[in-house]
Amino acid sequence: MQTVNFGVIGYGYWGPNIVRNLTSIDGSRVAAIAEISAASRQRAQHAHPSIEVTADAMELIRRTDIDAIAVVSPVWTHYELARAALLNGKHVFVEKPLTSNVAQGEELVELARKKNLRIMVDHTFLFTGAVRKIRQMVDEGALGKLYYYDSTRVNLGLFQHDVNVLWDLAPHDLSIMDYIIRTSPEAVVATGQSHFSGLEDVAYMTIYFPENAIAHINVNWLSPVKVRTTLIGGEKRMLVWNDLEADEKLKVYDKGVQINNSEGVYDLLVHYRSGDMWSPHLEQVEALRLELSYFLECIVSGEDAFNDGCAGLRVVRMLEAASESMSKRGSLVYL
Amino acid sequence: MQTVNFGVIGYGYWGPNIVRNLTSIDGSRVAAIAEISAASRQRAQHAHPSIEVTADAMELIRRTDIDAIAVVSPVWTHYELARAALLNGKHVFVEKPLTSNVAQGEELVELARKKNLRIMVDHTFLFTGAVRKIRQMVDEGALGKLYYYDSTRVNLGLFQHDVNVLWDLAPHDLSIMDYIIRTSPEAVVATGQSHFSGLEDVAYMTIYFPENAIAHINVNWLSPVKVRTTLIGGEKRMLVWNDLEADEKLKVYDKGVQINNSEGVYDLLVHYRSGDMWSPHLEQVEALRLELSYFLECIVSGEDAFNDGCAGLRVVRMLEAASESMSKRGSLVYL
Amino acid sequence: MQTVNFGVIGYGYWGPNIVRNLTSIDGSRVAAIAEISAASRQRAQHAHPSIEVTADAMELIRRTDIDAIAVVSPVWTHYELARAALLNGKHVFVEKPLTSNVAQGEELVELARKKNLRIMVDHTFLFTGAVRKIRQMVDEGALGKLYYYDSTRVNLGLFQHDVNVLWDLAPHDLSIMDYIIRTSPEAVVATGQSHFSGLEDVAYMTIYFPENAIAHINVNWLSPVKVRTTLIGGEKRMLVWNDLEADEKLKVYDKGVQINNSEGVYDLLVHYRSGDMWSPHLEQVEALRLELSYFLECIVSGEDAFNDGCAGLRVVRMLEAASESMSKRGSLVYL
Amino acid sequence: MQTVNFGVIGYGYWGPNIVRNLTSIDGSRVAAIAEISAASRQRAQHAHPSIEVTADAMELIRRTDIDAIAVVSPVWTHYELARAALLNGKHVFVEKPLTSNVAQGEELVELARKKNLRIMVDHTFLFTGAVRKIRQMVDEGALGKLYYYDSTRVNLGLFQHDVNVLWDLAPHDLSIMDYIIRTSPEAVVATGQSHFSGLEDVAYMTIYFPENAIAHINVNWLSPVKVRTTLIGGEKRMLVWNDLEADEKLKVYDKGVQINNSEGVYDLLVHYRSGDMWSPHLEQVEALRLELSYFLECIVSGEDAFNDGCAGLRVVRMLEAASESMSKRGSLVYL
Repeated sequence: MQTVNFGVIGYGYWGPNIVRNLTSIDGSRVAAIAEISAASRQRAQHAHPSIEVTADAMELIRRTDIDAIAVVSPVWTHYELARAALLNGKHVFVEKPLTSNVAQGEELVELARKKNLRIMVDHTFLFTGAVRKIRQMVDEGALGKLYYYDSTRVNLGLFQHDVNVLWDLAPHDLSIMDYIIRTSPEAVVATGQSHFSGLEDVAYMTIYFPENAIAHINVNWLSPVKVRTTLIGGEKRMLVWNDLEADEKLKVYDKGVQINNSEGVYDLLVHYRSGDMWSPHLEQVEALRLELSYFLECIVSGEDAFNDGCAGLRVVRMLEAASESMSKRGSLVYL
Repeated sequence: MQTVNFGVIGYGYWGPNIVRNLTSIDGSRVAAIAEISAASRQRAQHAHPSIEVTADAMELIRRTDIDAIAVVSPVWTHYELARAALLNGKHVFVEKPLTSNVAQGEELVELARKKNLRIMVDHTFLFTGAVRKIRQMVDEGALGKLYYYDSTRVNLGLFQHDVNVLWDLAPHDLSIMDYIIRTSPEAVVATGQSHFSGLEDVAYMTIYFPENAIAHINVNWLSPVKVRTTLIGGEKRMLVWNDLEADEKLKVYDKGVQINNSEGVYDLLVHYRSGDMWSPHLEQVEALRLELSYFLECIVSGEDAFNDGCAGLRVVRMLEAASESMSKRGSLVYL
Repeated sequence: MQTVNFGVIGYGYWGPNIVRNLTSIDGSRVAAIAEISAASRQRAQHAHPSIEVTADAMELIRRTDIDAIAVVSPVWTHYELARAALLNGKHVFVEKPLTSNVAQGEELVELARKKNLRIMVDHTFLFTGAVRKIRQMVDEGALGKLYYYDSTRVNLGLFQHDVNVLWDLAPHDLSIMDYIIRTSPEAVVATGQSHFSGLEDVAYMTIYFPENAIAHINVNWLSPVKVRTTLIGGEKRMLVWNDLEADEKLKVYDKGVQINNSEGVYDLLVHYRSGDMWSPHLEQVEALRLELSYFLECIVSGEDAFNDGCAGLRVVRMLEAASESMSKRGSLVYL
Repeated sequence: MQTVNFGVIGYGYWGPNIVRNLTSIDGSRVAAIAEISAASRQRAQHAHPSIEVTADAMELIRRTDIDAIAVVSPVWTHYELARAALLNGKHVFVEKPLTSNVAQGEELVELARKKNLRIMVDHTFLFTGAVRKIRQMVDEGALGKLYYYDSTRVNLGLFQHDVNVLWDLAPHDLSIMDYIIRTSPEAVVATGQSHFSGLEDVAYMTIYFPENAIAHINVNWLSPVKVRTTLIGGEKRMLVWNDLEADEKLKVYDKGVQINNSEGVYDLLVHYRSGDMWSPHLEQVEALRLELSYFLECIVSGEDAFNDGCAGLRVVRMLEAASESMSKRGSLVYL
């Protein structure tokens, strides 16, 4: 297999992980890193003496020996950088969320299609053992018809400068939800509040799905404790995913409810079923490594990833709708 | 002090606790119990051989030797029973929520005022050690300006026959919130879904307060695990109240955020403060016992309780607004 | 079935539970309660107006209309009371531990055998869903060969007046261990310390079994937190029983170790197996109720219980050995 | 300050952390690494291209440009390597435990004294925020007189080839205990069992101190779950240190017991005090980095560290006594 040459734009919080993985995976190489901050450039050069480090992102994008660009810079720069990369014939790996709005995302998806290039959005969680196991269980019908998806993702900080807490944290949940729930969401309601800079630091989002399925996401930069918990309720089984557990991240409950509503509301016969709990052993691979390996495969095979530009666009579509709803204090926005 | 004679209407899930406490508190006595179910009447008679047990609630309400009525029957019966009790000159202790709608609640409050009788709504949590300590901390300014109040109250069942999950579980949170946040809420947004009987079994509610404070309540009858957790974020301190902990229910975090926004959004300087955590020792009294003793005091003194009909009405007002919002899938409803 | 008439001696902490169950189980009746403390007699009379309450235990023991005596008094009184009861032809249910020493226990067992009467020792934990499930798993070979049994039972108080922490708390663990591990222990080592009254309030006990199985019990009256955790390691599976969990008390781990020691210690090949965790649903019956029903069955059938005098004696034998070892600061005492 | 040149012997599990810290701390430099395994040498060379890597430990020890040797190799090699280093005039940093027996440790301590060289034993935990805070509290008298120290350190694996679980895991607890309890232990009792290779994989150790203080250590390589919990009970306060907690590792309980034993054992008046819990914020520095910086300071100042050879020897003395006790199945061994 031919080596894919990467240019990595951005060496802040997440960029070092991208570079570390791309330099150690067979089949990829980092040719150059572009980073606007002098201090971060110095960190990059010290950690990777053999990689060229520059301040100029366009320099990477124009280099003919580079096959793919990883965009790991602030959200508001994604569109411009990814677009330039595609126009220069590069495959693109973009940090989540794909773009700042739907129009930008649509343009990128269309451009990649025309140029027959791959876009992958970094929805890292889809490559964790926990999410892969949940998807497998849903696919096998182990949970039955899905009733709800309810996620809480809160902690103290890190405040972002350019996006609110919804655009910062909810892409994780929305991409996972998009991966697990196989029907298209219908509408969104979001509420929230900002307490400092004008950007919301606390936000709540409800997503309506067909057939009475509902999803809810609670994100918060002002929580004294870190919480990463998702509850999924199905007709047959229910599960709790606590990503902060070292082991036993996933607990599957053989619990359920059955209601026989034969003769009107006052004759409801509710049966609760309460069986064993089961915590499947999860693979311990680094999700980002798996994702980047998959990106290489997609580049080589020419096939689109399941977390391609369209997947990224679906997430941006929900975020844009949520922003609109939140700005109107919770009005329903159809997707 | 003269003994207050009680008639207790309803001997289902909660009624036995009311009777047990009223019979053991100094200054009160249960003269009679009314209960519609023959099986429950039998339970009542067996547990309290010396108390008269009847099927007819109006019998109690009309008895002249009875001073006060405890209404511990389904929500849809509260208004009619409480109204009849007030009209017959009885003080009233009503299970939460006070009534099924605002109009009923307003009528009861007005009627009690005219007759100079006491109504107390059973907002039991206000009498727990945890809530009393939180209120004390807020009053002393220990948390500083309140940013948010975020509660999760989920478990498997118990499905109610006459009200949805919001009217069943959220009164707890709304009454606590009403007790702790001393400004009036401005508007409500609610979303939810029903999966069985037409009554919502999953619901989410956002409450907007003045000065950027926001509250959120997550209630669910379909959760595989029981959760009773409230996060409260303030300018000076933040707290987590986990009511399922045997000890250490309340944890107060000396944590905070300070943002110096001197020169525009990209120059934000965010300072996180992370200090000690402190878990105050809480009193171990039975909340209901404390509440009923307080009801006796109010009857004797002729003063209104802080959890009087008006407090109950404020909660019903929020529930009614939430129902309206939920039925429109999340539209903003002003209070 | 004929009703068994009980006399209950002792109405302190545990006695009320015995009386409550014996009065509500079909086939038994409490004829009289003997209690030395006037205050406790008053409590007993108030809770059970129709039961005769007396200060004189011998009065009960001599009554001809009483078939069985429950001895729920301090440990040092067990022998004398149980002996008198047996001599008067009564079956005996004795609070744990059976007696204060082995000689007394042996005499009671022998006396019951001669008189063909039943002795049951109140090893309540053997009737919990958790212990019954563990026993079932061991019997089915689900854990494989047992490697160790390790229990921690610590909390703040309650200091006993007549026995040290080992005699107070360890009987629970020793009776469970005796029920689960089907071979006879060989020897005991115990260490401990007293800080107040001369009675040890912190103690540790190791029990050696054949074939390299080992058990350890950690009991402590001076712990700031309550812990009730038992680890059991087997060749095939391992389990953790946390009795303080509301649900999921029992967690079974499909984990193990395999060592191929082909060519000496430096060529050890250690294989760790790490599979799923499984938490079986446990029955929610009251253990004491189940135990007392079983006692009735034994009385009727004339068969000895598995928690009979011999079982109680095996526990006392280990306690006596532990006391001897502890007094010599940890010397090995054979059983 | 002059740079201290290090030779690091051993690049297995812990060695890479030593090298990473020594290369990034001001005032130290790693001149060479010696490692017997070819695969590990390759790892070392790849991670540190500019450091010389060799198979021959004696080569490092003999180099005149090297000032200090870090011995991070198996326990049985410590004595010989440290001795050679001292004889060649090098300061020595030795992985715990210091040596395989007391005689070796005494010789090293004496040799270092004669040569006026520093030995530091890598008791890393003494440099964690948690242990430093505990020591501070003990020194300030916040706990009062110490009653007990009780540690549990269990997990699945890692089996060591040359030492049993006591020599592998207990040095952590013994060094912490030695640092916190300021009196000398009097005697040791240990029990344990091996299930595979002849080396004990489950072990329990009691340490008697003057004035009724007692310590206990539970170590186990066969536990399905990882536990790192220490309880410390004092006259005034008690604490729980759970090292697996991300935050709130340390919880201090304002709890206690007071016994008025005026008139014999049956008149005990036990008072329990139950106050607030407090979890101090702990510094988030890397303990090993702090320790190695301190080693540099000691080398420069010529003063002995508190975790010097004597401290290491005290731990080895307890381990040797425990081994003797364990081989006799729990006999008391005086220190």
